[in-house]
Amino acid sequence: MKVTVNRKAHFNAAHRLYNCEWSDARNAEVFGKCANPNYHGHNYELIVSVRGDIHPETGFVMDMKILKKLIKEEIEDVFDHKNLNEEIKEFATLNPTAENISVIIWNKLRSKIDSKLDLSITLYETPRNFVTFKG
Amino acid sequence: MKVTVNRKAHFNAAHRLYNCEWSDARNAEVFGKCANPNYHGHNYELIVSVRGDIHPETGFVMDMKILKKLIKEEIEDVFDHKNLNEEIKEFATLNPTAENISVIIWNKLRSKIDSKLDLSITLYETPRNFVTFKG
Amino acid sequence: MKVTVNRKAHFNAAHRLYNCEWSDARNAEVFGKCANPNYHGHNYELIVSVRGDIHPETGFVMDMKILKKLIKEEIEDVFDHKNLNEEIKEFATLNPTAENISVIIWNKLRSKIDSKLDLSITLYETPRNFVTFKG
Amino acid sequence: MKVTVNRKAHFNAAHRLYNCEWSDARNAEVFGKCANPNYHGHNYELIVSVRGDIHPETGFVMDMKILKKLIKEEIEDVFDHKNLNEEIKEFATLNPTAENISVIIWNKLRSKIDSKLDLSITLYETPRNFVTFKG
Amino acid sequence: MKVTVNRKAHFNAAHRLYNCEWSDARNAEVFGKCANPNYHGHNYELIVSVRGDIHPETGFVMDMKILKKLIKEEIEDVFDHKNLNEEIKEFATLNPTAENISVIIWNKLRSKIDSKLDLSITLYETPRNFVTFKG
Amino acid sequence: MKVTVNRKAHFNAAHRLYNCEWSDARNAEVFGKCANPNYHGHNYELIVSVRGDIHPETGFVMDMKILKKLIKEEIEDVFDHKNLNEEIKEFATLNPTAENISVIIWNKLRSKIDSKLDLSITLYETPRNFVTFKG
Repeated sequence: MKVTVNRKAHFNAAHRLYNCEWSDARNAEVFGKCANPNYHGHNYELIVSVRGDIHPETGFVMDMKILKKLIKEEIEDVFDHKNLNEEIKEFATLNPTAENISVIIWNKLRSKIDSKLDLSITLYETPRNFVTFKG
Repeated sequence: MKVTVNRKAHFNAAHRLYNCEWSDARNAEVFGKCANPNYHGHNYELIVSVRGDIHPETGFVMDMKILKKLIKEEIEDVFDHKNLNEEIKEFATLNPTAENISVIIWNKLRSKIDSKLDLSITLYETPRNFVTFKG
Repeated sequence: MKVTVNRKAHFNAAHRLYNCEWSDARNAEVFGKCANPNYHGHNYELIVSVRGDIHPETGFVMDMKILKKLIKEEIEDVFDHKNLNEEIKEFATLNPTAENISVIIWNKLRSKIDSKLDLSITLYETPRNFVTFKG
Repeated sequence: MKVTVNRKAHFNAAHRLYNCEWSDARNAEVFGKCANPNYHGHNYELIVSVRGDIHPETGFVMDMKILKKLIKEEIEDVFDHKNLNEEIKEFATLNPTAENISVIIWNKLRSKIDSKLDLSITLYETPRNFVTFKG
Repeated sequence: MKVTVNRKAHFNAAHRLYNCEWSDARNAEVFGKCANPNYHGHNYELIVSVRGDIHPETGFVMDMKILKKLIKEEIEDVFDHKNLNEEIKEFATLNPTAENISVIIWNKLRSKIDSKLDLSITLYETPRNFVTFKG
Repeated sequence: MKVTVNRKAHFNAAHRLYNCEWSDARNAEVFGKCANPNYHGHNYELIVSVRGDIHPETGFVMDMKILKKLIKEEIEDVFDHKNLNEEIKEFATLNPTAENISVIIWNKLRSKIDSKLDLSITLYETPRNFVTFKG
């Protein structure tokens, strides 16, 4: 009897789309205005989803207070008000597309959450563009 | 050719998180402010999702008028403006976490909906916390 | 390592629910006010979801600029500010329920998107009624 | 000590923008695709706002149950699932723009609400276009 | 050159509508299911709006970090996960309607905010019912 | 008989809070993480509101097609995917707080809109922080 519990969070960050192995011209051609060397930014809205059995004593799949604290420490405190390309080591050479950011967030949380629980990440880059990664 | 149809509904209720086999101290320790003996409450937003084949004559998986009426009679009329712990018999001994409420709602609706149709429940306890149960 | 990318779009259209093989009385009986011969209408909100591997050079599952343009040309330019029953050939004999519209949109987009990518369609007929079709 | 109380409601309707004193060509030129003779439609979201003193016994500016019923009877039951141009007498000769619809709704409600209370209407034609009329 | 700055916050609470000078029968008659003696509850969404001149050095009307902290300490920490009737002294004899709660919140914040700044409160009791109080 | 018409738009941009006449230490002290020299960013959501009389022939206060085009040309094309501090000349010496951005947007639009119409700007920096400027 598996239930999925979901927690929303958010962080505001600057980024640019950039493949460091390409020329500036190629970056501009493929990524258009998203490659602006001066950066642009987003209010990222994050949904962390954890699926598992309901614990019979607590009625919880996972205590939301613990999940909220985990998201704050591992994701919000790390990414909020940062420049993803310049300040987050995972994006030193990895292009910070919504797809890649969702994979990095999944990786950061996976090791901190009981392996019996399934984890998936939904990341809104804008209210009109969002991605989901289930591992 | 399966399609999922989804209907949103809502009810406002009081509850507290409480395991009746634990001491008050243990309830307070595990559930924190959610265990407040005077209760707190939520605007629960509910999405009922039904998956099945499109009926060739109506173009419907299920008539939304019927689903809307079913949700009103089985869920909204029962839970709205109630104290879940005190007034809903299922929670006399079961802790009314979002996880457990979603299971109870699923059980209440399952027997009323054609067994050829899949049923799943999404329940928002707040705009930031929500759960999904697929049976 | 599959990621789903999602793009929101919208169109405003008139429709009525109508089975052209039924009498007017039967249409009125089954579809109620939705069968009004003078039509009613909706702001349809559309989410197009594409699932596949992240391309290692771009960091994209699919370039959102291309998906946005595709949705505009194949769906928004075709359906927006139209009467679905009267002006969209697929609904000349097919009842334009949300279920059937989602299947038609899926069909229109499927042939334009790389077959290695999974496609699914979520269509909001109102903020309270929506459907999902995964093919 | 004035407080404004606000109630949301909604109706789905077809319409076209059309000045009946103009030629079809002039209507098409000015109103573009909104003049489509086959109609298009919207999910109109309505906010009715009533401002006045808090009644010392009830704590209400106006009983929301009464306002909800009034909106249902005067607006939703009249406009929902209708063709505004064809079926609402006020729009027989008046162009059903969001501006004009908001004035008509204000007029319909004004006489039913205590004249000591201020009334204003906000009408969303789409999530991106909305109007406010304060009388 | 006045600008209004607005900050959203939220708290979850139980309440019942109840005039302590009326009989139970009169409370039930006037307030209906909202008078349930076992309470019900809401996710209250709060918008605090502060209007004034832009400070030429900071570009702020008021530092949002300070306003956020003020709302947390004066409102969220006091009201969240509480029973308004039983645990908030202002509602010992005052009916906790949305109207009255907005006035109490305004009073709590007014003395803490520079008197040169205008203050107004918007309080959502549900996504469909909300009130505004400007003092 | 004045009506307000409102149009939503959006742009994504990087910025930092920075008073160029202050030391870096003073900027960091006052603006905290918002002063990060590597920038952060937001999805700005913009509402442009225009108030005036309904034109008796069109039923419009202002043609939304014209307002939409004006916002695109004057605001979205200028600000979207830009670094406000580095690339928008108005912010070369002016701190790009939400307050100041709303004033700059108001100024850019005021001269393009009929002076008989009132103009006001609402700018969401995040879903939780927003400002309104009425000139």
